Amino acid sequence: MNFNLDEAIEVLERTPQALESLLTGLSNGWLQNNEGDGTWHAIEVIEHLIEAEKTNWLPRLEIILQEGERKPFPPFDRFAHLQETSVRSFEQKLLEFKTLRAQNLAKLRTLVEPEKHLELTGLHPAFGVVKMRELLSTWVVHDLTHTAQIVRVIAKRYTADVGPWREYLGILNK
Amino acid sequence: MNFNLDEAIEVLERTPQALESLLTGLSNGWLQNNEGDGTWHAIEVIEHLIEAEKTNWLPRLEIILQEGERKPFPPFDRFAHLQETSVRSFEQKLLEFKTLRAQNLAKLRTLVEPEKHLELTGLHPAFGVVKMRELLSTWVVHDLTHTAQIVRVIAKRYTADVGPWREYLGILNK
Repeated sequence: MNFNLDEAIEVLERTPQALESLLTGLSNGWLQNNEGDGTWHAIEVIEHLIEAEKTNWLPRLEIILQEGERKPFPPFDRFAHLQETSVRSFEQKLLEFKTLRAQNLAKLRTLVEPEKHLELTGLHPAFGVVKMRELLSTWVVHDLTHTAQIVRVIAKRYTADVGPWREYLGILNK
Repeated sequence: MNFNLDEAIEVLERTPQALESLLTGLSNGWLQNNEGDGTWHAIEVIEHLIEAEKTNWLPRLEIILQEGERKPFPPFDRFAHLQETSVRSFEQKLLEFKTLRAQNLAKLRTLVEPEKHLELTGLHPAFGVVKMRELLSTWVVHDLTHTAQIVRVIAKRYTADVGPWREYLGILNK
């Protein structure tokens, strides 16, 4: 196991700024590109990250601390953000993600003592018994999965434009 | 074709800042993780991006403008950066990438007039005839390919740590 709470937080606290640097000011042609029917564009991925900050990571962490294996996590609706009907701008959404993340990391630092809590267990509705450190590792990798997704979705806009170079550009063939 | 020079530059000018936001200050455990023998860690990817700024994009662009199809591009050595022996810090390397990119985009803006030059052709050593707009599209997607690679390589450090969640996290199975 590599898990280390301080190192996990290093990644978690960088994600909003990295996405902001990558995306702020891009034309809609980039921001609204997707990979076909039923796939998400960059803005929808940010909405999903916001939803996970609200209803997934901290709520589950608190259930582990308070209930242990007595009460399963409520299922996380991975498509809830698609019901989102507010008219906030993309910049407002990025700011919301950044603010929620900062609040959640502050809570995480208050609630979790690594030497006491990392091996605590909870009950996942599909997987059964899971550990606090597995939940926290997943939070990190979930950030990176969706960052890579955004980068891939943007790249695919130029799939035809690169001409014969497509062969060398693995990201276009995923 | 989607290609538009201003939109391509939007992505190209954001890459150094996005990588800086993602990587600066991360522990070596993240920065020096790789995907096994013969694969690159994040720092090696940055070195490759530096090499491409020096010897790939602008030199090829200039050959198209000056020589057209008369003279093939010199081959780009995708492993040249692995011979790199200097002892610059990671922050210095990121700064070098940022500086070279800014210089190259300034040159690009001076040299290429979209209404005149995008359909110009050159001779790729493996692909044969290629267009200026294909070279420029490839520059964009090459940035995104290597950004996604860095994100994936970092994520893989926690492949075992996420426990049963691995199944939901596609990035770990690539």
